[in-house]
Amino acid sequence: MKILAFGEVMLRYTVPEHMLLEQSDIVRMSTVGTGVNLLGSLSHLGYRTSMITQVPDNSLGKKVVADLRRLGISDEFVGYTGGHLGSFFVELGHGSRPERVTYQDRLSSSFCITDANAYDFESELADADYIHICGIALSLTEKTRDAALKLAKLAHEKGVKVCFDFNYRMSLNEDNSHLMMKKLYQEMLQYADVVFGSKRDLTDLLDYDDAKDADLYAKFTSDYNIDYFAGSSRSSDEHKKYFQGFISHGGELYKSKPREIRILDRIGSGDAFASGVITGLIEDWNFENTLKFAVANSVLTQEALNDTPLFDKEDVFSYLECDGKNELIR
Amino acid sequence: MKILAFGEVMLRYTVPEHMLLEQSDIVRMSTVGTGVNLLGSLSHLGYRTSMITQVPDNSLGKKVVADLRRLGISDEFVGYTGGHLGSFFVELGHGSRPERVTYQDRLSSSFCITDANAYDFESELADADYIHICGIALSLTEKTRDAALKLAKLAHEKGVKVCFDFNYRMSLNEDNSHLMMKKLYQEMLQYADVVFGSKRDLTDLLDYDDAKDADLYAKFTSDYNIDYFAGSSRSSDEHKKYFQGFISHGGELYKSKPREIRILDRIGSGDAFASGVITGLIEDWNFENTLKFAVANSVLTQEALNDTPLFDKEDVFSYLECDGKNELIR
Amino acid sequence: MKILAFGEVMLRYTVPEHMLLEQSDIVRMSTVGTGVNLLGSLSHLGYRTSMITQVPDNSLGKKVVADLRRLGISDEFVGYTGGHLGSFFVELGHGSRPERVTYQDRLSSSFCITDANAYDFESELADADYIHICGIALSLTEKTRDAALKLAKLAHEKGVKVCFDFNYRMSLNEDNSHLMMKKLYQEMLQYADVVFGSKRDLTDLLDYDDAKDADLYAKFTSDYNIDYFAGSSRSSDEHKKYFQGFISHGGELYKSKPREIRILDRIGSGDAFASGVITGLIEDWNFENTLKFAVANSVLTQEALNDTPLFDKEDVFSYLECDGKNELIR
Amino acid sequence: MKILAFGEVMLRYTVPEHMLLEQSDIVRMSTVGTGVNLLGSLSHLGYRTSMITQVPDNSLGKKVVADLRRLGISDEFVGYTGGHLGSFFVELGHGSRPERVTYQDRLSSSFCITDANAYDFESELADADYIHICGIALSLTEKTRDAALKLAKLAHEKGVKVCFDFNYRMSLNEDNSHLMMKKLYQEMLQYADVVFGSKRDLTDLLDYDDAKDADLYAKFTSDYNIDYFAGSSRSSDEHKKYFQGFISHGGELYKSKPREIRILDRIGSGDAFASGVITGLIEDWNFENTLKFAVANSVLTQEALNDTPLFDKEDVFSYLECDGKNELIR
Amino acid sequence: MKILAFGEVMLRYTVPEHMLLEQSDIVRMSTVGTGVNLLGSLSHLGYRTSMITQVPDNSLGKKVVADLRRLGISDEFVGYTGGHLGSFFVELGHGSRPERVTYQDRLSSSFCITDANAYDFESELADADYIHICGIALSLTEKTRDAALKLAKLAHEKGVKVCFDFNYRMSLNEDNSHLMMKKLYQEMLQYADVVFGSKRDLTDLLDYDDAKDADLYAKFTSDYNIDYFAGSSRSSDEHKKYFQGFISHGGELYKSKPREIRILDRIGSGDAFASGVITGLIEDWNFENTLKFAVANSVLTQEALNDTPLFDKEDVFSYLECDGKNELIR
Amino acid sequence: MKILAFGEVMLRYTVPEHMLLEQSDIVRMSTVGTGVNLLGSLSHLGYRTSMITQVPDNSLGKKVVADLRRLGISDEFVGYTGGHLGSFFVELGHGSRPERVTYQDRLSSSFCITDANAYDFESELADADYIHICGIALSLTEKTRDAALKLAKLAHEKGVKVCFDFNYRMSLNEDNSHLMMKKLYQEMLQYADVVFGSKRDLTDLLDYDDAKDADLYAKFTSDYNIDYFAGSSRSSDEHKKYFQGFISHGGELYKSKPREIRILDRIGSGDAFASGVITGLIEDWNFENTLKFAVANSVLTQEALNDTPLFDKEDVFSYLECDGKNELIR
Repeated sequence: MKILAFGEVMLRYTVPEHMLLEQSDIVRMSTVGTGVNLLGSLSHLGYRTSMITQVPDNSLGKKVVADLRRLGISDEFVGYTGGHLGSFFVELGHGSRPERVTYQDRLSSSFCITDANAYDFESELADADYIHICGIALSLTEKTRDAALKLAKLAHEKGVKVCFDFNYRMSLNEDNSHLMMKKLYQEMLQYADVVFGSKRDLTDLLDYDDAKDADLYAKFTSDYNIDYFAGSSRSSDEHKKYFQGFISHGGELYKSKPREIRILDRIGSGDAFASGVITGLIEDWNFENTLKFAVANSVLTQEALNDTPLFDKEDVFSYLECDGKNELIR
Repeated sequence: MKILAFGEVMLRYTVPEHMLLEQSDIVRMSTVGTGVNLLGSLSHLGYRTSMITQVPDNSLGKKVVADLRRLGISDEFVGYTGGHLGSFFVELGHGSRPERVTYQDRLSSSFCITDANAYDFESELADADYIHICGIALSLTEKTRDAALKLAKLAHEKGVKVCFDFNYRMSLNEDNSHLMMKKLYQEMLQYADVVFGSKRDLTDLLDYDDAKDADLYAKFTSDYNIDYFAGSSRSSDEHKKYFQGFISHGGELYKSKPREIRILDRIGSGDAFASGVITGLIEDWNFENTLKFAVANSVLTQEALNDTPLFDKEDVFSYLECDGKNELIR
Repeated sequence: MKILAFGEVMLRYTVPEHMLLEQSDIVRMSTVGTGVNLLGSLSHLGYRTSMITQVPDNSLGKKVVADLRRLGISDEFVGYTGGHLGSFFVELGHGSRPERVTYQDRLSSSFCITDANAYDFESELADADYIHICGIALSLTEKTRDAALKLAKLAHEKGVKVCFDFNYRMSLNEDNSHLMMKKLYQEMLQYADVVFGSKRDLTDLLDYDDAKDADLYAKFTSDYNIDYFAGSSRSSDEHKKYFQGFISHGGELYKSKPREIRILDRIGSGDAFASGVITGLIEDWNFENTLKFAVANSVLTQEALNDTPLFDKEDVFSYLECDGKNELIR
Repeated sequence: MKILAFGEVMLRYTVPEHMLLEQSDIVRMSTVGTGVNLLGSLSHLGYRTSMITQVPDNSLGKKVVADLRRLGISDEFVGYTGGHLGSFFVELGHGSRPERVTYQDRLSSSFCITDANAYDFESELADADYIHICGIALSLTEKTRDAALKLAKLAHEKGVKVCFDFNYRMSLNEDNSHLMMKKLYQEMLQYADVVFGSKRDLTDLLDYDDAKDADLYAKFTSDYNIDYFAGSSRSSDEHKKYFQGFISHGGELYKSKPREIRILDRIGSGDAFASGVITGLIEDWNFENTLKFAVANSVLTQEALNDTPLFDKEDVFSYLECDGKNELIR
Repeated sequence: MKILAFGEVMLRYTVPEHMLLEQSDIVRMSTVGTGVNLLGSLSHLGYRTSMITQVPDNSLGKKVVADLRRLGISDEFVGYTGGHLGSFFVELGHGSRPERVTYQDRLSSSFCITDANAYDFESELADADYIHICGIALSLTEKTRDAALKLAKLAHEKGVKVCFDFNYRMSLNEDNSHLMMKKLYQEMLQYADVVFGSKRDLTDLLDYDDAKDADLYAKFTSDYNIDYFAGSSRSSDEHKKYFQGFISHGGELYKSKPREIRILDRIGSGDAFASGVITGLIEDWNFENTLKFAVANSVLTQEALNDTPLFDKEDVFSYLECDGKNELIR
Repeated sequence: MKILAFGEVMLRYTVPEHMLLEQSDIVRMSTVGTGVNLLGSLSHLGYRTSMITQVPDNSLGKKVVADLRRLGISDEFVGYTGGHLGSFFVELGHGSRPERVTYQDRLSSSFCITDANAYDFESELADADYIHICGIALSLTEKTRDAALKLAKLAHEKGVKVCFDFNYRMSLNEDNSHLMMKKLYQEMLQYADVVFGSKRDLTDLLDYDDAKDADLYAKFTSDYNIDYFAGSSRSSDEHKKYFQGFISHGGELYKSKPREIRILDRIGSGDAFASGVITGLIEDWNFENTLKFAVANSVLTQEALNDTPLFDKEDVFSYLECDGKNELIR
C-alpha cells in the first residue's frame, strides 16, 4: 500500500513554553504542511508514503527533506529548486487565550514557482494506490494549480484513488476571485474519490443552498460522483470541549460520538482526522470504527505538540480501548 | 497621549517548564515591576509611555533598559546610578500547587538609594497626561517615599492626572510602622485622581470600618476627593475560577461580570487590569466597556507567561468579540 | 531520626515540554528510583537519610551520586562498581494522551550485578531507625534478591523498622515464575513492619481471595504480623480526578477523603505517599492527619515535574491549611 | 547628533552551539540588517538613531520592531505593511570549517514592496545629521532603488551627510544587468559624502582600471566628489588572522595596523567598522585614532555572536588601552 | 551504487556547551555508531545506503530509526527486537582538557542479543555494491561475531565488496582472549577487500613484527589478499595539530600531506576518513585525490559537533579549493 | 582529613554560548565563592569538607545548599538567615574580547549580616584539620571581619591549620581605608599557616618595599611566621598564554614551569591552584610535584566552564602523565 501526497512543505517556527513571539528569541523548527502531516501520520500507521513537492536547493532544503525522511516519508519525488520555503510562526494558547499563527510569504517558495512540467507524474504514480492533493495548491499560483489539476486528472485516469482536501481559505491569495476558485474546485472534484471538507466549503465556495447535513452531503457526493465526503467539527458545553467527525457515503451520513478534548496545539487536527479516515478505507473497517479511529488520532494529535501525528495503530487502539482514561503507559 | 510611571524596575527570574528552583540551573530573565508592567501594556495599547526610575550603571543596567525599550517604554528619564537591582524568583504553579515568588534584597537597589533631588521631575512632567505612582515606593526607603510624594504633589499642581496603586504589603519593609505607613498613604491620596486597590487596603491600612463595598468606596473617594477607585477580585465555584473588576466613581459602584480564568502565571494581574482601566478613561468609554476591557486584558495576561501584558487593542477586542472562545487565530 | 533505603538508582530522561521522544533531541536527566524518591522526600521533610546502593565507577556514577547529595541523601553507603546504570525515558502526557515510560536494560546495572557480600549491612544499620526496601529488588537478579532478604532479616533482628514496598510488576524480569515471586515476597513480609501496596498485590501475587478491603487487609496484616499496611488509589467523576489513601492497622482500615488532582507528571506518586505515611509514623500523628499529609505530599508531587518530592513540612501544611486553594505564595 | 538609516530589516536564525542546520530543531532569532547593525552600534556609542524601513503588519513585525528599540534604535519611522520579512540562517564555523549563510526570499518583503511615496522622507530628514543608505536597496526591487535614490538626493539637497555602503553582490537579484547596476550606483554616488566599499567594488562594478590603492581611491573620490572612502580587509600568516581598515580622504590614503582576530561570528564586520568610522567623523578624531577605533569595534564584534555590535565607547577604549590583552573585566 | 553496513546503532548523549556531566541536567541525543557514521556520510556524498541492524521494539527504537532515515540511511533492513540500546556520554574538551567518553552497557542491546539467523542476509545483499562491517561486532557477543562472519563470507561469495574496519579495543569485552580475537580477525580478513586500521592493529592484534610502514602494510595486504588497507594518524608541532591518511595498495604506500586541524569533537574521525576513501574507490579517483578528499571530510567532521559527517561532495570540494581558508559561505 | 572553609556563598549567572547579557534572556545559575570553589575541589580530590556560612531562609537558600551538597560539601554548618544572597553575572570572552563580571549587592547578604556570635565555631572546629578563610570577609562588613578574625584566632589556638587567601580588592567595600584594611590583614596573618596571594598584596596592601620575589616572600613569611606562601601568575608570548605557580617556604622559593593555557572561563583559577597546593601539603608531596599538580588543576579548571574545579586526583594525574596532550579519554 503506497500513498502519495502533492503539496507544499512548510517550515513551522514554534515559540517555546506558551510564550508570545515578543517574549522569546528562541524558536523550535518543524517541517509540516497538509501533505506532510497526512503522510507522516500514514507512515506511522504502517503504510509506504512519498511526497511530491519542491524544496530550496540549499542547506535549508536538505534539512527539510531530512525531516521528511525522519517522519517516514520517502524523498524519492522531492525536487530541489529555487531558494525559498514558506513558513509560519506558532504561539501556543492557554485557557481562553487563543493559539496564534502568523504566515510568511509562500508565493515565492520553491513549490509555488515550479511548473507542472518539472514533475514526472507519470512515473511517480506508477505503483501508487492513493494520491492526496491539498486544495491550497489551487489557491497559490498558476503553476501550482496547473500541476495539481494535471496530477489529479492523470491519477484519475490511471485508477489511483484521488483524495482531495478543500482546505479553502480566501486569505491564501487575495488576487483570486470567488468565481475562479469555484471553477478550479469544480474541475478538481471531477477527479476526486475521497473528499475532506466542511459544510461551509459547499455553501460558501460551491454555492450550494443550505440544507440538512445528510441531504446536502448526499447531493454533493452525487453531483460530483464522490465516493466519500468526510470532515470534523467542534462543540463545547459549559465545562468541556469536544471533537467529532462524519463520513458521507452512498447518500448515507455516518457520525462519530463527540470525544472530549483538551487542546495543547490545534494545528493539524484535520490532517490527523483525514489520515485516520484513509486508514479505515484502506483497512476496510466499518464507518463506526473508522470514525472512532480518525477522531482518536486527531484528539491525540491536538493533545500533543506540533502538526504532524506521530501515533501508530497500537497507540490509537490502546487509547480507544481504555476510552482515553489511561494516565500512564509503561 | 503620554503616560509616565515612577517606580522600581526589577529583574524576574522564572524557572522554566513548571519546575521548582531546586530542579533547574537555568532561569529566564525578564524586566518587570508595577510601572514597567503598566507602561508596557499601555504602550502596546497605543500610547506613548516613559519610565522615571534608576538602574545600575553597568551591563546589567543596560540590559534592563534595553528591555524597557523593547516593551515600548521610553528610557529618556531613566538614570544610571549604583550597582544593584531588586530581583525575585518565580516558580510557576500547576493545578492546586501554588505559584511561588522569592524576593531578593531591593532596599539597596539603584532606585532605593536615589534621592528625590536626583530627578528632574519638573521637566519630566512637561508634556505628560498621566503619571502612575506605585505605592511600593512609600514602603521602601526614605528616599523613595520622599521622591514619590514630591512627584505626586508636583504632578497634582501641574494638572497631570495622578494614578496611584496601593500595592501595600507589610513585608516590603518591616521597619515601617502601621501608623507611619497610614500617614504616608494619606498624604499621597490627596494628590491622587485615580486609585487602584482593594477593600482590605481601606480597612486594614487606612482603618476604615467595614461596610458594604459601594458605601465604603463612596466614602473613601469622597474623603480623599478621588475621581476613580478601581480594583479586581477572584472567585471560584467547584469547577472553575473567575476574575472580575470594579470601578467606584461619583458615589456609584460599577462591577464587571466574572470571567472564567485558567491561570498560567498570576503575577501582574492587577497591573493588567489597571492599564485596561486607564485605557478606558483615556478613550472615554463607559464603565461597562472599560471593565470588560480591563478584565479581558488581565485574563489574557494571567493566561500568558510573565508579568507584563503584551496585548494590543485588537487582541483584546477580538477576544471579547468571541467571548474568549476562539481557539486559533490565523 | 535516620532512615535508610536499599534499592536501585536510575537515570530518568524526560523529554521537554510535553513532546514525544521522536520530536526532541534534547532530554533532561534526573536521578530517581523508589528509594531515591522516598529518601529525597524524607530529607526535605527534615530527617537524616542514606541510600544503600551501587553505581557505576565512572563520571556517570559520580554525577548520579552528586544528585543524591543534592536531594539531601547521604552517599556514605553508596558503592562504585561496574559501568552501567538502569534508565528510562519519560514522555509527559496531556489531557487524555497518557504519559509514557520506556525502560532501558537494568539487569546489567551496577546494582543488579552486586553480591550481597559486597555490602556491609551490619555497620550500615548501626544507627538507623528505619530501613526501606523496594520490592523491585526481589524481581531483578539473584544477587539483588539475596541482598534484599539478607538486609531485611538483619534489620528485623536488630530492631530497625523495616518498610517494604510491593512495587510488583511481572514485566521487570520475565524469567521469574509466579510461584517463585510469591515465595520471595512471603519471606520478605516476615521481616516487614510497614508495608506499602494495593489490593491487587494481595490477590494476584499472594493469592488471597477477594474480599472487602477492610477484611482483606486485616487478614493480611495479621497473617504476616505487619504493623501498618498502606496504599493509595485513584478515582474520577465526569469532570475531575481524585487521589486518596488508606492505612490498615490493628485490624482497622483508615481512609482519607479523595483530593482533586490535576496531574503534570504521575510517576513517583506512590513514593510521595509512602514518605508522607512514614513521616506520620515518625511524628506519631493520628491516622487522619497522617493520611491527609501523605495524600497532600503526593498530590503536590504529581502536580510538579519529576519523580522525587521536594516539599518540606511547611509546604505541605500550608497547602493543607488553604485546602489547596492558594494560587500564589510570596 | 542624530543618524538615520534606510534599509531592510532581516530576521537572522542562528543554529546554536556550532551545529549545522541539519543537526538542530532549535534556532535563535535576531533582528539584523546593514542599517540595523550600524544604528545599533551607533546607539551603543552614544548617538540618537532612527531606522527608516517597513516591516510586516503582524506579530512578527511587532517583534522585530521591539528588537530595534531594544538595540536603542527609534521606531518612529518604521512602517507596517505587507506580511513578509527577509530572513537568513547562520551556521557558525569552527577552525577551518567556514561559517555558512543561507538566505530566504527577500524580494517579497514588506521593505521590498513599498513604494518611495509611502515614506515621508522630507519630515524624517528634518533633524538628521547623517543618513546611511545600504547599496543592497539598489539591487532589490524597482521600488527600493527608487526610494533609495530619492532619499539620497533629498538628503544631499538638505545638507544631511549621506553615507553609502556599496554592499554589492550580484546574487541579490540575478535579473539585474551589470550596466544597470553600474548606472544606479553612479547616480547614488553623486549624492554620497561618505562611502564604504572595497577595491573590487571600484574595479568590478564601476569598471575602474586596476591601480595602486592610494591612486585608485584618490581618483574615485575625486570623480564622484566623495569626502571619505573607507573599507576593511583581512590577511593571515601561518598562525594567525588579522583585520585592518583604511580611509581615503582628500587624495591621501590612511591605513590602520592589522589587528589579530579570532573569529566567532564574522557577519557584520563591515557594519561594525563603518559605525566606528562614522563615530570618528562625528567626534572629529584624527584618522589614526578613527581607524584604531573602527578596527577595534569590528574585531570585538567578530569575536562576539550575532551581527550587531553592542559595544559602547568605554568598551572600545578599554580594549585599545590594554591592546586587547585583558582577559577579565570586573 | 548501494552501500550496506552491519553494526550496532548507539545513542550518544552530549553534554552541551563544553560542560562536564556533573554540571548539566540537559543532554543532547544523537544516533551514531561506526556503520551509522559511515553510511550517514556516504548518503550525504550521494549514494544509496542501508543499515543492517537491530533496535529496541519501543518508542526509543522508533526514534533511533527515524534518526537513521533523517541521515539518509534506509531502514528497510532494521529489525525491532528486545528493549535495550547501547549508549555513551560525551563531555567535549577544550584546549588541553580532553574530550571524555563514558560507555553504558551494550552487551544486552538489541543488536548484541540477535542471532545470525534472524537476519536475511541473502536478500539484503541482493543489489548491494559494498558492505561495511565494523570489527566491534567481533568483540561483542557470540551472536554478533557469528553474524558478522556469516555476512562477510556470504558477501565475499556473492562478489559484494567487503569493507572491514579493525576498530579493535580490548575494553569492549574483557572476557575475550587475545588468541581468540586474533583468530576471529584472521577469519574475517579472508573475506575483506578494503580494510581500515592502524599499524598497531597489525603488530598488537595480529602479532606482526614491527617494520617500516610501507613494508609492513605490503606484507599484510599480500598475506590476506586485501585490495586496500587505509588509515589515518595525528601529529603536532609546537603550535598546531595535524591529521593525515594513507592507503596501501598493490605493495605501494600512498600518504596525504598533513592538514591542520582545530578539533571541536574528535569522535567519528576514522569513520569520516573511511567514507572518504570509499568514495574515492567508487569514483575511481587517484590516490592523491582520494586521500585529500578523505582527510578533508574527516577534518570538517572533527571541526563540527557529533560523530556523523554531514558534508556533501560540494562541501568537501569547495573546502579543498580554498585550502580550508574560506571563512564565510553565502 | 577534614577541611573547613568560612566565607560567602554566591550565585553566579552565566550567559550561555559566549553571548552578552544584552543578547540573552536565559542564564545558567551556579553556586560559587572562594570557599565553595576550594572545598568543591577538595571534595573531588578525596577529602571531607564542610562550609561555614549563612544563606537565605527561603527556597533560594535551599537551592544553594543543595548545590553545596552536590559539590560534595557538607551543609552541617550552614545557617539559614535573612533573605538575600550576593550574586554576579558572567559574560564569557572569546579571542581578545575579555570575560566580564558584573556584581550585584552583597553587603546585605545573609552572610554579611550575620554576627560572629551566631556561629558555633568551637564545635565546628572540633574535628577539623584545616580551615580556609577568604580575605574578602575582612572587606565586607564589620560582622564578617569580626567573625573571620575570631574564627582564625580560635583555630590557631586549637592547632587547626589556618589557610588564608588575600583575595584583596579595594572595590569590595569602598568605605574601607587602606590603613584599616592593612591592620585587619596584619591581625589575620598572625594566625595563618598557609597564605595565598601575590607580590602586589605585599607591596600595595602591606606596604612592603619592592624586592626580588624570593627575598620579599622570605621576609614576609618570616615576619608573620607563615609556613607557606603560595600564588600563581600568567605570562604570554606572541602565540600562546601560560600559567604558573610558586610556593615560598622556609626562606626558599619554588616555582613551577609555565604551562600553556587556552582559557574558556578564567574565574576560579586561584581557588583551583590553592586546592591543589593544599592537597600537596596534606599528601606531603615535594614542592615540584605539588606545584605541577596545583597548576594542572587550575589549567583544567580554566579550560572548563564555571568557577568550581570538578577534577579528581586521577583526572589531574592522567593529565600530567600525557603532559596535557591527550585529546580523548574513553
